[in-house]
Amino acid sequence: MTELHWDTDALVGFATSLFKAAGLEADKAETIASALVEADMMGHTTHGLQLCAPYLNALEDGTMRRQGGPEILSDRGAVATWDGRRLPGVWLTARAVDSAVERARLYGTASIAIRRSHHIACLAVFLERATRAGCMVQIACSDPAVASVAPYGGTEPLFTPDPIAIGIPTSGDPILIDTSASITTNGLTGRLHGEGKKLPGKWVQDADGVACDDPGVLFTDPPGTILPIGGQEYGHKGYGLALMIEALTQGLAGHGRADPAEGWGASVFVQVSDPTAFAGVAAFNRQVDHIVAKCLGNKPATAGIPVRLPGQNALRKRRHAQENGLKLYSGIMEALQPWARKYEITPPASSARA
Amino acid sequence: MTELHWDTDALVGFATSLFKAAGLEADKAETIASALVEADMMGHTTHGLQLCAPYLNALEDGTMRRQGGPEILSDRGAVATWDGRRLPGVWLTARAVDSAVERARLYGTASIAIRRSHHIACLAVFLERATRAGCMVQIACSDPAVASVAPYGGTEPLFTPDPIAIGIPTSGDPILIDTSASITTNGLTGRLHGEGKKLPGKWVQDADGVACDDPGVLFTDPPGTILPIGGQEYGHKGYGLALMIEALTQGLAGHGRADPAEGWGASVFVQVSDPTAFAGVAAFNRQVDHIVAKCLGNKPATAGIPVRLPGQNALRKRRHAQENGLKLYSGIMEALQPWARKYEITPPASSARA
Repeated sequence: MTELHWDTDALVGFATSLFKAAGLEADKAETIASALVEADMMGHTTHGLQLCAPYLNALEDGTMRRQGGPEILSDRGAVATWDGRRLPGVWLTARAVDSAVERARLYGTASIAIRRSHHIACLAVFLERATRAGCMVQIACSDPAVASVAPYGGTEPLFTPDPIAIGIPTSGDPILIDTSASITTNGLTGRLHGEGKKLPGKWVQDADGVACDDPGVLFTDPPGTILPIGGQEYGHKGYGLALMIEALTQGLAGHGRADPAEGWGASVFVQVSDPTAFAGVAAFNRQVDHIVAKCLGNKPATAGIPVRLPGQNALRKRRHAQENGLKLYSGIMEALQPWARKYEITPPASSARA
Repeated sequence: MTELHWDTDALVGFATSLFKAAGLEADKAETIASALVEADMMGHTTHGLQLCAPYLNALEDGTMRRQGGPEILSDRGAVATWDGRRLPGVWLTARAVDSAVERARLYGTASIAIRRSHHIACLAVFLERATRAGCMVQIACSDPAVASVAPYGGTEPLFTPDPIAIGIPTSGDPILIDTSASITTNGLTGRLHGEGKKLPGKWVQDADGVACDDPGVLFTDPPGTILPIGGQEYGHKGYGLALMIEALTQGLAGHGRADPAEGWGASVFVQVSDPTAFAGVAAFNRQVDHIVAKCLGNKPATAGIPVRLPGQNALRKRRHAQENGLKLYSGIMEALQPWARKYEITPPASSARA
């Protein structure tokens, strides 16, 4: 069977051209295009170029702002609060991580809370902006306009899946953790529902609180909900993480579910810590490298399936896509054809590989 | 059936006297005694006065240091690193939270990493030192000398359960989250094993990686392990949190599993954020209070069992114990009798209540 592959640089150029044609300034267009293609390269196919068409729609209808920067609501050096003014969340988050790295050099830890950002796509792609500088980074987000997870013991949607990503530098590849307060995501449940498939476990519950593996329960009226980490057995664990993430993102940013919904978007919390300001980089790496070695050398539960580090698969996939071209999830390029025609931009050619 | 209850102030006084008799300075003895009794009052009975006798043992054999303060390894204002010099972890953690609150007033967010602390007991009791000041707080810890959790997909113990507690202020009672990267704790599995009981679910695995509900698998040779949050189904979630907590506690503190084991102890990470420095207290409370109301008003999955907030039960139990006296978990006062005789301290009288 042959499969279509695309050159990754050509895909970034194509998406950049589309975003520029939709009115985005060049640096914003390039930052977003690179982040989406990188998400696909790392295997996060629900948060890559699949988002390109919805973002173009949002730019057209004005719900995603095209120009300018965030409004600074507070700045104390070690912490800052931004009003994202509905600017592209991918661009805002990249700027926030870069700014937090600079601030962490001085203060040791720096935190930026962003209200009224648009959607920020794949959290994992921002982590290396900090780990390459030798820093730890946490990125959390929630969308005050979306609710698909109930508090533990409840049935009515209140939270978003509330993702949190953590980057940890090591002497070698960084550890790239991409997790959330809920068992699964809106993106995966939506995709599986569209394809008529089931979830791998009882990761959702219907509107009466009965746990099941059918993503269709999220699309009934009233809707069911995605279960927090721990499910119905010990879901207080995920519920606690959700409350933490909602407080960091919406509480500290001072805008969220208590305000009128403004549509698809995000409240974001970025924090960077520089080991230099604590016990030093050498001491940090010595501990983390030791743990990495102990993980990779741990006797597997299933013979032949070695223990992996978070991010290890994603980094391997990215290297493969860089060298061999990227195979896109089905339907993604098709969804961009009308936009390419509208803006008179030629999509990149694919190559067929065995 | 009648049950024995103790006056909580009398218990604090008793434990303070024991710790002072074992050589601790008065403020350390009082801080630790109060924290242990408060843990019992909040229902964390594996991390309350049950720890008193082991702590007295550690003071006697010199593995817990009696006097002085931490060595300051770095201090940049917004972050600091302490060498705990094997001082009591409860006292060190209380000092760290208080210091981080003061620092957060100035910098917005403040973080303190502590290496070579002794055991810190119940994380939840420290949270209100920050929430009463209107601040968010996170406390994480790991014990580099103890391993009972394997990385996801592995079978050999590497991590501690890696607890993390989060305090979130609201206009009313604070949200007090007490969770961990693993499904359950060393304390609970040890207690249930001693009592010949099973766990509520498949929360552990044997040394071959077979999940089960028998805490006894942790006491075989080679030992089994406690499963990370998500168990064998999606334990990469708990594994990621464990890596984050080990990096925050041992990586930033620059001392941990890569060093020779020094016995029962902890690496600690404390972080406090002051909403004043972000979008302001009023904006923070407006969001958090809204979420609290939506949680408490959420339609329950089981009729008659309303959705609770993390900490709500603990605060209710504490109020009850303050008013009615504290019922201790069986065996706790008995374990302290030899110490009371040795130090010639009279244990407080209990009262029998229906």
